[in-house]
Amino acid sequence: MSDHHVYKKVEIVGSSRNSIDDAIQNAIAEGNQSIRNMEWFEVTETRGHIENGKVGHFQVTLKIGFRIENS
Amino acid sequence: MSDHHVYKKVEIVGSSRNSIDDAIQNAIAEGNQSIRNMEWFEVTETRGHIENGKVGHFQVTLKIGFRIENS
Amino acid sequence: MSDHHVYKKVEIVGSSRNSIDDAIQNAIAEGNQSIRNMEWFEVTETRGHIENGKVGHFQVTLKIGFRIENS
Amino acid sequence: MSDHHVYKKVEIVGSSRNSIDDAIQNAIAEGNQSIRNMEWFEVTETRGHIENGKVGHFQVTLKIGFRIENS
Amino acid sequence: MSDHHVYKKVEIVGSSRNSIDDAIQNAIAEGNQSIRNMEWFEVTETRGHIENGKVGHFQVTLKIGFRIENS
Amino acid sequence: MSDHHVYKKVEIVGSSRNSIDDAIQNAIAEGNQSIRNMEWFEVTETRGHIENGKVGHFQVTLKIGFRIENS
Amino acid sequence: MSDHHVYKKVEIVGSSRNSIDDAIQNAIAEGNQSIRNMEWFEVTETRGHIENGKVGHFQVTLKIGFRIENS
Amino acid sequence: MSDHHVYKKVEIVGSSRNSIDDAIQNAIAEGNQSIRNMEWFEVTETRGHIENGKVGHFQVTLKIGFRIENS
Amino acid sequence: MSDHHVYKKVEIVGSSRNSIDDAIQNAIAEGNQSIRNMEWFEVTETRGHIENGKVGHFQVTLKIGFRIENS
Amino acid sequence: MSDHHVYKKVEIVGSSRNSIDDAIQNAIAEGNQSIRNMEWFEVTETRGHIENGKVGHFQVTLKIGFRIENS
Amino acid sequence: MSDHHVYKKVEIVGSSRNSIDDAIQNAIAEGNQSIRNMEWFEVTETRGHIENGKVGHFQVTLKIGFRIENS
Amino acid sequence: MSDHHVYKKVEIVGSSRNSIDDAIQNAIAEGNQSIRNMEWFEVTETRGHIENGKVGHFQVTLKIGFRIENS
Repeated sequence: MSDHHVYKKVEIVGSSRNSIDDAIQNAIAEGNQSIRNMEWFEVTETRGHIENGKVGHFQVTLKIGFRIENS
Repeated sequence: MSDHHVYKKVEIVGSSRNSIDDAIQNAIAEGNQSIRNMEWFEVTETRGHIENGKVGHFQVTLKIGFRIENS
Repeated sequence: MSDHHVYKKVEIVGSSRNSIDDAIQNAIAEGNQSIRNMEWFEVTETRGHIENGKVGHFQVTLKIGFRIENS
Repeated sequence: MSDHHVYKKVEIVGSSRNSIDDAIQNAIAEGNQSIRNMEWFEVTETRGHIENGKVGHFQVTLKIGFRIENS
Repeated sequence: MSDHHVYKKVEIVGSSRNSIDDAIQNAIAEGNQSIRNMEWFEVTETRGHIENGKVGHFQVTLKIGFRIENS
Repeated sequence: MSDHHVYKKVEIVGSSRNSIDDAIQNAIAEGNQSIRNMEWFEVTETRGHIENGKVGHFQVTLKIGFRIENS
Repeated sequence: MSDHHVYKKVEIVGSSRNSIDDAIQNAIAEGNQSIRNMEWFEVTETRGHIENGKVGHFQVTLKIGFRIENS
Repeated sequence: MSDHHVYKKVEIVGSSRNSIDDAIQNAIAEGNQSIRNMEWFEVTETRGHIENGKVGHFQVTLKIGFRIENS
Repeated sequence: MSDHHVYKKVEIVGSSRNSIDDAIQNAIAEGNQSIRNMEWFEVTETRGHIENGKVGHFQVTLKIGFRIENS
Repeated sequence: MSDHHVYKKVEIVGSSRNSIDDAIQNAIAEGNQSIRNMEWFEVTETRGHIENGKVGHFQVTLKIGFRIENS
Repeated sequence: MSDHHVYKKVEIVGSSRNSIDDAIQNAIAEGNQSIRNMEWFEVTETRGHIENGKVGHFQVTLKIGFRIENS
Repeated sequence: MSDHHVYKKVEIVGSSRNSIDDAIQNAIAEGNQSIRNMEWFEVTETRGHIENGKVGHFQVTLKIGFRIENS
């Protein structure tokens, strides 16, 4: 068995009408559909759309780190 | 009709006793009193006051982008 | 009495299973056990662990500023 | 006469279907409608929309510096 | 239908012998061969090769954002 | 009475033949002619002109934060 | 034949119990299993785990640039 | 005797009603009350309070580096 | 038992006549004399002294994260 | 023959009344008068003068990398 | 006569026992001994030595821009 | 004798087939051929070429600070 791991990062933007926390959860839920062994995330940008003078969507950019299998 | 738009950005700091999300909503609600055609926001700083060993206010700095009329 | 103050900053990482706001509150509650005169905080990083395809913990790095006594 | 000047900066986003250079020219032409004594600009961000697999609009964020009258 | 979208970003470096604008167009044209629903780009770096005392190639690094289908 | 405040930031460049401190004071004095409730400033850039091999003017860019009335 | 190339970047985190240099080599060896035409790398972050008061693993984040075939 | 040294950095914010230079001197004088072997400082932020349309206090954030004894 | 942890970061500069890797190990060995539960490090700066036209010492600035007991 | 090269970087600011691309070409043409073995450039800043409400000059700061002879 | 100019930047570190302003003046005075047509400076770093619990020297890093003759 | 010194910084890129440490040593050895009074270096970038799925060359960008004679 290897004594080291190798990880990859992908950049995903989640959005939510409700909150920053939800936008993060949505991004990770989406990542979970195609990525195995997701281990951590890093927030790199927070922004959003404004509709009718209120927040329309929060948009949060994450880097998601996942372990490469058999590494 | 113009085939391009021009936008301006203003920097607003919203605060809230409750949450980061609320501080953002407060900043945009305030902007809505004097700015037309607000389209997006970008969070550039998150900080706050501490009172009695707890968060007193969350303070979130936003850049708000709005379209200039007739541009 | 002095006409100026001197402040120090410490860097604390709070975590929470629930939200970014809670992770900040946890960091400050912990700081409150040993630091007097905490006055403000600055968020410098937001990241977290992923467990079973969901956020396991939000982890927020704060700088906490406090006034040095008798300064 | 004063021996120093004071300047202000505003942040404007110009767009163009053709080029980055044009997006800058459009932002400055717009600024020229309401700002006097514009003296310099600084590019802080270059991005754009994609339409049908091609650049739809180049969008360039500028800070424009102008001298305050009588300063 | 979902009330929020999730986006992914990929980082592509386009080059051109002619101009920065062309290097961006080339990167997006290449992305268009394999990515659906490309919506925006962000320029993160501009550099290039020098040949015989002139620009050989402009090289522009873009992040391209695209919507994940069914999100 | 509101339990939160909203602040706005403007970016002003002060100059002085004498010192960095003076350039900051000049920027704030100028701001004071048109802005009410100025509360804090942040230095974002220090530069200047050179004349005859000496500093001609120090130029200091500040962001000035002020409270929006009735917020 | 095209007179320009297009490149893509992926972000990989290599680790090693021995050294920073090894962590970089491990990341590239892993990339080599699935990526063709890798041409350069850029180090964007160096960090690591601590075990029993010593470095457990060095972890180095790389961006790896590779040429897209037929571009 | 060791052929290498280890240093630690602390972050201190000095203030002064008079000047940036004084705010730095105040921070270091305060550090001198509890820290031995201070060797260098790095300015990381300059800001301040505004009172009655003038600078109330200059506030300068320093990192102070000091040698750990017996290292 | 708590379902979340709180961490603190300290900034330490390690040096070595031999290599960057050694400078990191020296910083962590020093930290190990007074800090319990050290869990990770982040490299924030790499520099050094030059003596007689060669590297005299490598100096590496780390942030070391450690878990606060009973948190 | 050496199995490694050493490069130096100089920082040059090119200007042009016409375009960003031209300002880059002018900087490199100027460098070509005194520098041998120029190999690459990196754009670090884009700004310019405004004259009569239009771009007077585009000014682009480049770092130019060149190989040191016999290295 | 050329309708554009080309500038070069050099990086100089001035020091002073007295103040940040003096350190800048010293750097420019030194530059003046060998550089013609110096036109502007940009401060990129402020740091210093500590001696006996006080500032020993302020050290300020400048980039100095000068026009290349006949450009 | 002057009570202050003035320093200059040059930017050099060293390369090595073996390690990051060697690339730094090569850059400084090269600098030593033409620069007197080199005192310190700062690493600003680490990157490299990939050949046949392995590191071809490590390339490390340094700023090297040296004291100006008679300053």
